[in-house]
Amino acid sequence: MALLQTVDATVVPRGGLDMLSRHEIARLHDASRTGLHEMLRRCALAVLTYGGVGDDARALLESYRDFDIEVVQRDRGIKIELRNAPATAFVDGKVIRGIAELLSAVVRDIVYVSTEIQENPRYDLGSSAGLTTAVFEILRNARVLKPGVEPNLVVCWGGHSISRAEYDYDKYVGYELGLRGLDVCTGCGAGAMKAPMKGAAVGHQKQRIRNPRYIGITEPGIIAAESPNAMVNHLVIMPDIEKRLEAFVRMSHGIIVFPGGVGTAEEILYLLGVLLHPENRGIPFPLVFAGPRAAAPYFERIDAFLRLALGDEVSSLYRIIIDDPVETARTMKAGIDQVREFRIAQQDAFFYNWRLTIPEDFQHPFVPTHEAMAGLRLHRDREKHLLAADLRRAFSGIVAGNVKVDGIRAIEQFGKFEITGDAELMEAMDAMLADFVAQHRMKLPGGSAYQPCYRLVW
Amino acid sequence: MALLQTVDATVVPRGGLDMLSRHEIARLHDASRTGLHEMLRRCALAVLTYGGVGDDARALLESYRDFDIEVVQRDRGIKIELRNAPATAFVDGKVIRGIAELLSAVVRDIVYVSTEIQENPRYDLGSSAGLTTAVFEILRNARVLKPGVEPNLVVCWGGHSISRAEYDYDKYVGYELGLRGLDVCTGCGAGAMKAPMKGAAVGHQKQRIRNPRYIGITEPGIIAAESPNAMVNHLVIMPDIEKRLEAFVRMSHGIIVFPGGVGTAEEILYLLGVLLHPENRGIPFPLVFAGPRAAAPYFERIDAFLRLALGDEVSSLYRIIIDDPVETARTMKAGIDQVREFRIAQQDAFFYNWRLTIPEDFQHPFVPTHEAMAGLRLHRDREKHLLAADLRRAFSGIVAGNVKVDGIRAIEQFGKFEITGDAELMEAMDAMLADFVAQHRMKLPGGSAYQPCYRLVW
Amino acid sequence: MALLQTVDATVVPRGGLDMLSRHEIARLHDASRTGLHEMLRRCALAVLTYGGVGDDARALLESYRDFDIEVVQRDRGIKIELRNAPATAFVDGKVIRGIAELLSAVVRDIVYVSTEIQENPRYDLGSSAGLTTAVFEILRNARVLKPGVEPNLVVCWGGHSISRAEYDYDKYVGYELGLRGLDVCTGCGAGAMKAPMKGAAVGHQKQRIRNPRYIGITEPGIIAAESPNAMVNHLVIMPDIEKRLEAFVRMSHGIIVFPGGVGTAEEILYLLGVLLHPENRGIPFPLVFAGPRAAAPYFERIDAFLRLALGDEVSSLYRIIIDDPVETARTMKAGIDQVREFRIAQQDAFFYNWRLTIPEDFQHPFVPTHEAMAGLRLHRDREKHLLAADLRRAFSGIVAGNVKVDGIRAIEQFGKFEITGDAELMEAMDAMLADFVAQHRMKLPGGSAYQPCYRLVW
Amino acid sequence: MALLQTVDATVVPRGGLDMLSRHEIARLHDASRTGLHEMLRRCALAVLTYGGVGDDARALLESYRDFDIEVVQRDRGIKIELRNAPATAFVDGKVIRGIAELLSAVVRDIVYVSTEIQENPRYDLGSSAGLTTAVFEILRNARVLKPGVEPNLVVCWGGHSISRAEYDYDKYVGYELGLRGLDVCTGCGAGAMKAPMKGAAVGHQKQRIRNPRYIGITEPGIIAAESPNAMVNHLVIMPDIEKRLEAFVRMSHGIIVFPGGVGTAEEILYLLGVLLHPENRGIPFPLVFAGPRAAAPYFERIDAFLRLALGDEVSSLYRIIIDDPVETARTMKAGIDQVREFRIAQQDAFFYNWRLTIPEDFQHPFVPTHEAMAGLRLHRDREKHLLAADLRRAFSGIVAGNVKVDGIRAIEQFGKFEITGDAELMEAMDAMLADFVAQHRMKLPGGSAYQPCYRLVW
Repeated sequence: MALLQTVDATVVPRGGLDMLSRHEIARLHDASRTGLHEMLRRCALAVLTYGGVGDDARALLESYRDFDIEVVQRDRGIKIELRNAPATAFVDGKVIRGIAELLSAVVRDIVYVSTEIQENPRYDLGSSAGLTTAVFEILRNARVLKPGVEPNLVVCWGGHSISRAEYDYDKYVGYELGLRGLDVCTGCGAGAMKAPMKGAAVGHQKQRIRNPRYIGITEPGIIAAESPNAMVNHLVIMPDIEKRLEAFVRMSHGIIVFPGGVGTAEEILYLLGVLLHPENRGIPFPLVFAGPRAAAPYFERIDAFLRLALGDEVSSLYRIIIDDPVETARTMKAGIDQVREFRIAQQDAFFYNWRLTIPEDFQHPFVPTHEAMAGLRLHRDREKHLLAADLRRAFSGIVAGNVKVDGIRAIEQFGKFEITGDAELMEAMDAMLADFVAQHRMKLPGGSAYQPCYRLVW
Repeated sequence: MALLQTVDATVVPRGGLDMLSRHEIARLHDASRTGLHEMLRRCALAVLTYGGVGDDARALLESYRDFDIEVVQRDRGIKIELRNAPATAFVDGKVIRGIAELLSAVVRDIVYVSTEIQENPRYDLGSSAGLTTAVFEILRNARVLKPGVEPNLVVCWGGHSISRAEYDYDKYVGYELGLRGLDVCTGCGAGAMKAPMKGAAVGHQKQRIRNPRYIGITEPGIIAAESPNAMVNHLVIMPDIEKRLEAFVRMSHGIIVFPGGVGTAEEILYLLGVLLHPENRGIPFPLVFAGPRAAAPYFERIDAFLRLALGDEVSSLYRIIIDDPVETARTMKAGIDQVREFRIAQQDAFFYNWRLTIPEDFQHPFVPTHEAMAGLRLHRDREKHLLAADLRRAFSGIVAGNVKVDGIRAIEQFGKFEITGDAELMEAMDAMLADFVAQHRMKLPGGSAYQPCYRLVW
Repeated sequence: MALLQTVDATVVPRGGLDMLSRHEIARLHDASRTGLHEMLRRCALAVLTYGGVGDDARALLESYRDFDIEVVQRDRGIKIELRNAPATAFVDGKVIRGIAELLSAVVRDIVYVSTEIQENPRYDLGSSAGLTTAVFEILRNARVLKPGVEPNLVVCWGGHSISRAEYDYDKYVGYELGLRGLDVCTGCGAGAMKAPMKGAAVGHQKQRIRNPRYIGITEPGIIAAESPNAMVNHLVIMPDIEKRLEAFVRMSHGIIVFPGGVGTAEEILYLLGVLLHPENRGIPFPLVFAGPRAAAPYFERIDAFLRLALGDEVSSLYRIIIDDPVETARTMKAGIDQVREFRIAQQDAFFYNWRLTIPEDFQHPFVPTHEAMAGLRLHRDREKHLLAADLRRAFSGIVAGNVKVDGIRAIEQFGKFEITGDAELMEAMDAMLADFVAQHRMKLPGGSAYQPCYRLVW
Repeated sequence: MALLQTVDATVVPRGGLDMLSRHEIARLHDASRTGLHEMLRRCALAVLTYGGVGDDARALLESYRDFDIEVVQRDRGIKIELRNAPATAFVDGKVIRGIAELLSAVVRDIVYVSTEIQENPRYDLGSSAGLTTAVFEILRNARVLKPGVEPNLVVCWGGHSISRAEYDYDKYVGYELGLRGLDVCTGCGAGAMKAPMKGAAVGHQKQRIRNPRYIGITEPGIIAAESPNAMVNHLVIMPDIEKRLEAFVRMSHGIIVFPGGVGTAEEILYLLGVLLHPENRGIPFPLVFAGPRAAAPYFERIDAFLRLALGDEVSSLYRIIIDDPVETARTMKAGIDQVREFRIAQQDAFFYNWRLTIPEDFQHPFVPTHEAMAGLRLHRDREKHLLAADLRRAFSGIVAGNVKVDGIRAIEQFGKFEITGDAELMEAMDAMLADFVAQHRMKLPGGSAYQPCYRLVW
């Protein structure tokens, strides 16, 4: 009940929104009152409940129905006005500084990005290069790109709803990363998004590292359901999942994948699809699949599927390290040292991986309609990166057909998806999904057994 | 097993030991090889196992029998040579920076303090003023006194072996302190020494406070059994418990007492004895007894005893706040604001409470022999601060007679202590101790029931 | 001769050019190779000879005919390649850091501003508001606007070719400004542009002020002839004199005018024209005319002219302080305190004076053709700010007709300018100009006496 | 007259005096009121007139007869109370921060050093090692020794009353030192003590070097006549000339000697005496005699005398560089690089040259009585470092006999000094002194010609 107390307050924005031109202020004010208002409201509420001692973000979101936010125009700059905001965001009447920062990040990324990047004729969001530039602009504008900083950013992926044992393991890996001076970037919520940050913080503290970075990269549709964890000290809200994935890939100097569910498997397919692109050959990119002993089957299954689908040589792009946090951190550190040498040799920037080719296929959203699913070509004789892209889409569609309300309804209405592909490949995918269900990593409605929602056609 | 791996290494000392004269170096080197060597060895081992992911300090201490340390003399300064040191103190062959700092603190406080303060003719350790100056010198030398820093240091006392519920509560209070910009100083071990630091760290992180202080003040006899927790970023080793208590009292701007055992009760008697001294009347000193609902009986019992023994007016010196972390932190903050105003009005320093009178009685160690116990006068008509001092001693002796090996043996050999005092007072003390046993806050050998180890005489 | 040694070198740009998108890099590279190349070359050469022990910039410029500069495109960012650059810009083979910074400023302001602001469809450089925004953008991009900094910026105007006595006086005033924590912004060259910075540096050093700002604001046509003095640690190159004047006025918190020549008089007319605008009534703007005893006649003459032309009440906008550096600095400090209070009351920014109205008339360049001069209306019954604008233009044209090659030739060819205005006003202007000639503040070709180059018409 | 305005004020001390124990405060207070009071008063007055725009320290000293200073005891610390202090030390009623720092340095070095070092039984000021330790303690206490700072400290010696041409040259050398990141330490007054600091400041500013050090090391007898110049940002007052010279030699990483008078020649003899000591063989010590073309005869004469007296091989210890500031700075930089490598190889500290042997002969004051002068042995067949020590003394005595009031009177009263030595050596010394008179580097009373004030005996 104490948590439902609310407060009206005016917050002075920080970092980047403190020096705007009159035109920028006016555009910001206008945009925040119309189309973007509801998105702004939901994201703001998420950060206002940032990493409480409790962690039940969803319930809070429903509880604060009367919450509202307005970006107010002042000659001097803008102010953020809050009405019926959660009292927990305030200490003795003053907003918590970290929350004021995250709130500024929300306004910056939701409204400012909309007016200054998306509506700016300078940016061609239709082209691949234009999209890559937009991702760069959003990150630069969020001040998470820093010239002169040594490569040390590890992105960690994995499930947000994981067992205590996996959480503790991920934390331990984070600790070993922190001891080695590595910073952590995740999707910013709970579970594998929080644990490595928690662990890294202890390592950083022991090494007396000042200003460590715990970067959370999220999207509007997700932050509203998942408040940033209490470790996050830099927050970026990317417009959609594709830009978010591109941000992870181009900012990071290495990626660790912890056990997760189907979403994690999708991210793996995305990343390997990129790394398999012929133009990316020879660009070092440390990638480790890491987990405790109990998670070994999860990665074994994924590994088997990847080798079958993309050939054994795909396994040279990643390393699976089970039950060894020290070795995981050492491998990552050694890999990042190689990245550093490579970037120096190529005169590439440390802070953004311009050199990596991310094909346009990977940059546009995929909506798994029956028609779109019918257009996929899942044959093993295709170029690997194209196949990986289509596999990711198929995977995404099949998951939707099994677990998402819209997907299940579409299957009921129009029948199973028709997919063109190799039977062996599709059987392997089915087996992997059945395994995920058995490992409680994918939850089917009513606890039913996994049933394919597609049929193969030729 | 991995934990028992050992390493030989040379550590370059930091902070304060990096600019010594040749004479200081020579004295340091000599002292470290002779009388102080064993103490140095044990304390060094404690910090080398600093806040591991696990926390079983004692077992580690026994495991590293071959560990040794030498302070080596160089023209340029000193080096610390370690043999068979725990491998966990090192990352990929390099000592963890925080551990190097704590190791330097150990050498500084064990050896340097011994040669430069205790053996220095300038310091008269026989007088009360001399002892207060020595405490000041040790703290100044440890660089934990900072001019120009606003009063914000809360000392937290409490048990090191507490329930999960109490741990979580203490952490929550720490979080609320951290949100209000308050730093934390404790005895540096586990339980109530760690929880408020952990909580404060989250609060500090949320408020983006740079360089928060987590000060651990310990003594040679205790640190060896209790490694500093992972939060501690400033460590001071005081020569004995009396100087340690004086350090707590003179450095802090307020004290929170969490539930503990008999040790905590003793600390309360020490502090109230000081505050009751007539010369200390009117000096603001925020003091809160804080705990969750379940700890209410503990503080009720102590409160009852204090009122009976020292009069109802003693209760004006503290406030008991149950099940309300926010109110606890607010009370402390408001009290510290008063301390600040008082110090400014009096032109007193913020960093050391010179004004407080700590009578010599409280500055010298008390050894509870039968003779010493017989010398106590526990009558309620005495001056309150003298009675409090004797109560603390009686309490200390009775605890020893019940739970400590030496004490139990002495009782067996010479019979019960003979104590002169009011029967009502002694019965209240008995009742309190029986309660502590019932609450599992004092453990008697073999789980026996509490039996007084003294008899009253007139 | 030693000074004519040259060096080929590659310079890594700093501050703002270290994190560009690929598109920005490409645009920068293209622009630097075509239309802007010669301007870039000349400005770069000016900063490469930055504040030598000697100060003869012009001669150096002629000497380095083979000097060239190229902005080279790298994946990682840009590099600046120099050929036949003055060896004095280097120490033992490495470019002087301050020169690398100024060189980056030149590329930033010449090329980056051209591609990112002038050619950006977002900026409407046709409107008054658009021009004000462009000035803001250039200054923000140059990182000389800082949120959170207290108002303390004094702009100093005055002649670049002044007597030793005036130089020493201006320096003394700068010293008193520096002692009071005020930063200095000037036109960045020699004389009154250098002296207050030199003096302020001594004051800042005595007050142990870290990171004082010595901001030079110049334009491409002027920097080439006048290298930044050695004190300048922030350099901004504005596209033209009107934007430069607007930058001075909107950034500063107060202005001191030292004795100068006709240029200084023109600046005074500009500033008073702005301050007289009805919408600017009530906005505090500290303005002092300051000089040694010998400079009193200069300001007396200007004061008399201003009162005659604009009415006695104009004198309430400035204060003349002769032979009293301490009073000058105190007046400026007190005035800035008022500015601070006003901005806080109005919630205006400290770093940019958005509130001030600068009419479009003052934002566009004036070319003194016979036709343009014939269009002026110099009647004392006009609105004061419109009259001030026309007076500034008339003044500018008459000076051109007397001393500039193009102006003299135009008079020879087309006869005297025809000006519409009050005879009394024009006579006063003539008298003032004759005085300037007598005081050696305006030099006529061949040392001839002043002769009006216009005739009055009705 | 404005300069004679006075102010009463209380100054809060800084840096090192802000955290004293009650005992230290009491000792400080007592000492400042008795024996040390007059010295404290004179030194305080010197820093209160620190680097004014004018530079006539002596006249000011006479003008402030009513000036007084008291160190006042507060619980919180000390305060410095000033009465009738020069108004120029204050800006709008507040003391200039740099002056408050220097004032604290005066109290620290005059009073604190006296009570805490000279009267401390720990320090044996009778032994050579004890004296070296005392010098170390005073410098450490003054916080001018910094661990972790790269060797970059150049001591500059030379005359305080020099020609404009020499001043400009010394400044130019300082500029080249500053460009190379070298800090400057001098005797803290005018002339060659100020010029290299002024020049270095321009070089440091151009290289954007933060926190450059301009260290002035002076003595009580000298500072009173010579206020620190405006560049000095660290001031140390050593008890006497011998400790001051030892401080210069042990702190510096290289020394440049600019042209001066007889004092400068004496310093050269001191330094060469030390460097010639057999135990110092092989310790790198960059030493340059530097000056403009016009100063060549000065160094030629000194060089000739040194070679005659100490053998040609003495010339390997220094390098004479005429009319080439760049080469001077480069030589110093290269020499310091060698010092750095040597110290690393030997594990010696960067901040204090413990390794150098300074014989006790050089550590005790020499008073040139007739008896003392008769005890010198100026024979060229003696060990070089012993001869150098005696030559320095002879030189000192002869200068006193020619120019100092006491010396001239002693000669008048007791006749010429009797000196035992080689005739050739003494003639060379006479010739050198006659040259100094001719070059206006030594001023004889009434402008008379040089006459030896001694006679040789066997």
